[in-house]
Amino acid sequence: MFEFKITRKDPKSSARTGVFYTPHGSFRTPVFMPIGTYGAVKTMSPSELKKCGAEIILGNTFHLEERPGSTLIEGFGGLHEFMNWDGPILTDSGGFQVFSLAKSRKITDEGVEFRSPLDGSKRFLTPKKVLQIQQKLGSDIAMQLDECAPADASKKVAEAALTRTRRWMEESLEFWFNPQGQPSGLNSKQALFPIVQGVNFPDLRRESARFCASLPTPGIAIGGLAVGEAKPEFLRTLDIVCPILPSNKPRYLMGVGEPRDILEAIERGIDMFDCVIPTRLARHGSFFSESGKRKNIRNSKFKTDKKPLISDCRCEACQNFSRGYLRHLLVSNEILGMRMLTIHNLTWFFGFIQAIRSSIREGRFSSFKANFLRKAVSDFTK
Amino acid sequence: MFEFKITRKDPKSSARTGVFYTPHGSFRTPVFMPIGTYGAVKTMSPSELKKCGAEIILGNTFHLEERPGSTLIEGFGGLHEFMNWDGPILTDSGGFQVFSLAKSRKITDEGVEFRSPLDGSKRFLTPKKVLQIQQKLGSDIAMQLDECAPADASKKVAEAALTRTRRWMEESLEFWFNPQGQPSGLNSKQALFPIVQGVNFPDLRRESARFCASLPTPGIAIGGLAVGEAKPEFLRTLDIVCPILPSNKPRYLMGVGEPRDILEAIERGIDMFDCVIPTRLARHGSFFSESGKRKNIRNSKFKTDKKPLISDCRCEACQNFSRGYLRHLLVSNEILGMRMLTIHNLTWFFGFIQAIRSSIREGRFSSFKANFLRKAVSDFTK
Repeated sequence: MFEFKITRKDPKSSARTGVFYTPHGSFRTPVFMPIGTYGAVKTMSPSELKKCGAEIILGNTFHLEERPGSTLIEGFGGLHEFMNWDGPILTDSGGFQVFSLAKSRKITDEGVEFRSPLDGSKRFLTPKKVLQIQQKLGSDIAMQLDECAPADASKKVAEAALTRTRRWMEESLEFWFNPQGQPSGLNSKQALFPIVQGVNFPDLRRESARFCASLPTPGIAIGGLAVGEAKPEFLRTLDIVCPILPSNKPRYLMGVGEPRDILEAIERGIDMFDCVIPTRLARHGSFFSESGKRKNIRNSKFKTDKKPLISDCRCEACQNFSRGYLRHLLVSNEILGMRMLTIHNLTWFFGFIQAIRSSIREGRFSSFKANFLRKAVSDFTK
Repeated sequence: MFEFKITRKDPKSSARTGVFYTPHGSFRTPVFMPIGTYGAVKTMSPSELKKCGAEIILGNTFHLEERPGSTLIEGFGGLHEFMNWDGPILTDSGGFQVFSLAKSRKITDEGVEFRSPLDGSKRFLTPKKVLQIQQKLGSDIAMQLDECAPADASKKVAEAALTRTRRWMEESLEFWFNPQGQPSGLNSKQALFPIVQGVNFPDLRRESARFCASLPTPGIAIGGLAVGEAKPEFLRTLDIVCPILPSNKPRYLMGVGEPRDILEAIERGIDMFDCVIPTRLARHGSFFSESGKRKNIRNSKFKTDKKPLISDCRCEACQNFSRGYLRHLLVSNEILGMRMLTIHNLTWFFGFIQAIRSSIREGRFSSFKANFLRKAVSDFTK
């Protein structure tokens, strides 16, 4: 059911293009996945997402289990049917969200206990349970439950989290395969990805990458780099991890979506990304200019600006509205403004990824990257 | 520039169909105008509005003058250009909104003084000033400044408001015509409607209707019936006012949009309506069922409901999503849910008005009305 075909390798770096096949169709890599936390990419309809260029979306297991619940979604035939998205879906395990509930969660070797932020009731997630939930959601790619240690964790804490994550992956695999060791129904319809952890400790990252590389899964994820990463550690970790991972499987760098980080990661062999950047920033009024620099439409200098956000952009916002009007909508909290900036930012993002794919295909990725970084002043990580 | 053609008269009532021609194209009557308070019908793009069936929209002068200001909009070439709506636009005078600021406004014969709800600064609106603002907005139909007395006003208060409204209309006409009595630039591009007031006092309403009927304007509005009207007074007032108004001009009943009220008003000869009902209710989760009865999608009985809002509805919401999914979106405060219910409610509303026009054209308005009222249990005014 799952197949990863590498279509082109960059001769000067580890960048590559490929196609990943899932039960709900294929997507081209490198790929960017917009985030549909509660079964909708905020403000957007599925047909709008496709128009912008989305090929796969991400659903948040933690949020969907809280509301409306995986059992209800299963009753609708799964998340695809429920939200009317017929392309591939990846779901996370919910681990990252649970670990963000710093005060109200308790981790044991069995799983993680927490109180629902919705109604305060006690919940307990185990490696098996998060897969059962994702099975009900019916996503094409499921993630293991992992313990995501904070970026400033001590080595002892990081090591303990890694041991647990490894053990949880073993339990996940057990569930993923049926008792006879044959691919189960789940396996045939849903890919399972393990997650490389280890904070910024080279030996832990190496150990974790080796473990994940040894598993019979259709792809591998790298976690823990979106949480307050610092540039040098981020690059060093990718430099350590990527060469260990099998080159014939897609590599998914979780939660990283800053354009310059995407370029650095693709250069090191990453194939999949997800991030709230384009959609969340849009709702706060930030839009991507042609160079990738972000500007805030609320700035009063846009008040009387009759130009579109980007003059030759093909998106619905740029084809129909001026910066001045969009500024007015954002300042007035009009939903249409948030929608249009979301459409614009996603269109920019998918166009950016498409341009990267083209540059790899045409053997000019390095110059594309250098050119982009020279032009762009990315103001998010600063 | 403005012409009203009556295309069909109902033989059994005062209902009629017609076409009103404006500089931005024509609209068919009876017509329903959705409300674009801040230069956008909330959540909707202009192309979506057209898809739903909108032929003319309403802009709120008071709100637009507060934000972003008519001078800024004029700089964009007017409201049509600013918001990218190329069909007809009607703007109100802002009077109704100012009079709603009960505590912070002071009425004199010259106009009304109030404090801006945005920044607390003093504002002063006069009959001439509201027309100048509407001129800058460039709407096709402008409304006079009127004093909208409350529904429970004493006769003395109502009479004073009426005298002022009449005087303000005379000043408005003076501005509308140039000093030579020839149509001014404004006149050629923008229609001016006077407003019949008089609360629920038959003699005041009669007097006001006679005055408005005597004026050389392309249409006439009836105000003060949307504010806490009671059924019998509402009908009695229409029964008094409509026969006095010239039959060759469109009659606009301001702020009334309850389906059963629309039917009663059309029967008495009303041609134009505006109301927040379909859009505001949508954002709170109410949707129109086939019979016109409103249901709240948040109701838990819709949790697992796989049916669309209305099974044979052609709108984007019904073509793509189940009640269960839409319920989830509304409960989760997802913007997509508000959008889809807005699209559904507007589609229902325009379909309702279209069905009324067809019934008049085919000489079966009375039975259409009786049939609708028998089926619908309109729960808004109850």
